[in-house]
Amino acid sequence: MRREPFPPLSKAMLGRLARLGQKKHRDSESLFLAEGLRTVSELLQSLPDPAMLHALVLDENAAAQLDGLRRFAGKVWLAGTDDFRRLAQTTSPQGVCAAFRKPQGGEYRPASARSFVVALDDVQDPGNVGTIIRTAAWFGAEAVICGRGTADPFNAKSVRSSAGSIFALGIDTTPDLAKTLRRLQTDGFTVAASALNGQDYRSFAVWPDRRILVIGNEANGISTEVLALANRRLLIPHAGAHPAVESLNASVSAGILMATING
Amino acid sequence: MRREPFPPLSKAMLGRLARLGQKKHRDSESLFLAEGLRTVSELLQSLPDPAMLHALVLDENAAAQLDGLRRFAGKVWLAGTDDFRRLAQTTSPQGVCAAFRKPQGGEYRPASARSFVVALDDVQDPGNVGTIIRTAAWFGAEAVICGRGTADPFNAKSVRSSAGSIFALGIDTTPDLAKTLRRLQTDGFTVAASALNGQDYRSFAVWPDRRILVIGNEANGISTEVLALANRRLLIPHAGAHPAVESLNASVSAGILMATING
Repeated sequence: MRREPFPPLSKAMLGRLARLGQKKHRDSESLFLAEGLRTVSELLQSLPDPAMLHALVLDENAAAQLDGLRRFAGKVWLAGTDDFRRLAQTTSPQGVCAAFRKPQGGEYRPASARSFVVALDDVQDPGNVGTIIRTAAWFGAEAVICGRGTADPFNAKSVRSSAGSIFALGIDTTPDLAKTLRRLQTDGFTVAASALNGQDYRSFAVWPDRRILVIGNEANGISTEVLALANRRLLIPHAGAHPAVESLNASVSAGILMATING
Repeated sequence: MRREPFPPLSKAMLGRLARLGQKKHRDSESLFLAEGLRTVSELLQSLPDPAMLHALVLDENAAAQLDGLRRFAGKVWLAGTDDFRRLAQTTSPQGVCAAFRKPQGGEYRPASARSFVVALDDVQDPGNVGTIIRTAAWFGAEAVICGRGTADPFNAKSVRSSAGSIFALGIDTTPDLAKTLRRLQTDGFTVAASALNGQDYRSFAVWPDRRILVIGNEANGISTEVLALANRRLLIPHAGAHPAVESLNASVSAGILMATING
């Protein structure tokens, strides 16, 4: 099959895309970068609207591997190794890079009487943020709400870990997570927080229709303010009298709790 | 408190430690490297015997932050930024690096009538391997058995993800995972494999006293040979009629299944 030739990436466009490596430019342009054949393919497959693709940059090799590019006519460019080296945010340059429009954020509002939401309280590792978004999408969360201190979900590492799920649910950012949670409590939400001084997570036989799971910082857990307002504090018990390791990874805890609360 | 001065790291020792970045040298010397204050502290705390520390390399800053170094007398060296740049395997040089003796591997043999084991079938990401070891330690697994294709659990990235749990359970490597699993089946083990064509993991009310959970490759799942011999194939159902994302992360699936099988 004959392929349409794509124009070469201009220096101006390269500069504009490379700037998306910084959060302030992602915020001001409302765009984010994704890298690598797998991540970009996953996002293209889950794209709610072709207009959400802003630019797709490929090397010759990748252009031959991606199908269905016709619907993105006018937004696909060819680039060389040096360009990819400048664009690369995560690992080694991979020959595929795309800029997408950020989904509309806005303040989370429940869509129905039965709603499951995940909130991140100072989760600092972008890999954890992306993995928790991916897991939340699998278990049908309506939104992931990112509190202060949480890594940017549109960081390239987080985008890679989210495995194409970024358009599948709402992604909201709040400067005051405790305030947001209190607002949702007045809307009938039960706030559950992962906590070392909590109660065995399996001991809650029934979960209300509206619930929020809060995951805390990797080293310090949930903030005092959020813990104080939580309706349920959930502990994942370790085997034996003493734990063989200090804690579980934040994404793993989140997965275990989501599987129970909304599995 | 006055601190003992530590001798500077010699060039010969620096070269020997830097070589541990390669698997063949880790294997031939039976040593592995750990980096960063957090990871090294976690490993020092869980050390079954001070003799398992081979060498601890610190910059002035880190030397002031670590306590209890007296028990490692003669094995602690001071190093500068250039040395750490040469030693660094993972992220940016961090001012703390240590070489530990690998725990005795050997073929896994069950320690008691009730035994839980995790097996990795071509799990390629070192972060996943380390995180699964950490989770297995939390849930009381006796061992993690690494099949062919699985990332080296003693790779610096895996060591970091395992969060100091590497000495808490057996770590075995096998060139033929199917053969090892068949041997354990004759010892009364039930082999459970995570699989997309499996049965809801919550539908097994009872788990035999001896069980192995097999986690597969990030993209392709469990190999045909291992899947064929599995006694139980476990599926983690997604929400809704269609999944919002293609799959769960391997470490997250592993965590959810371990919490159910051995929680």
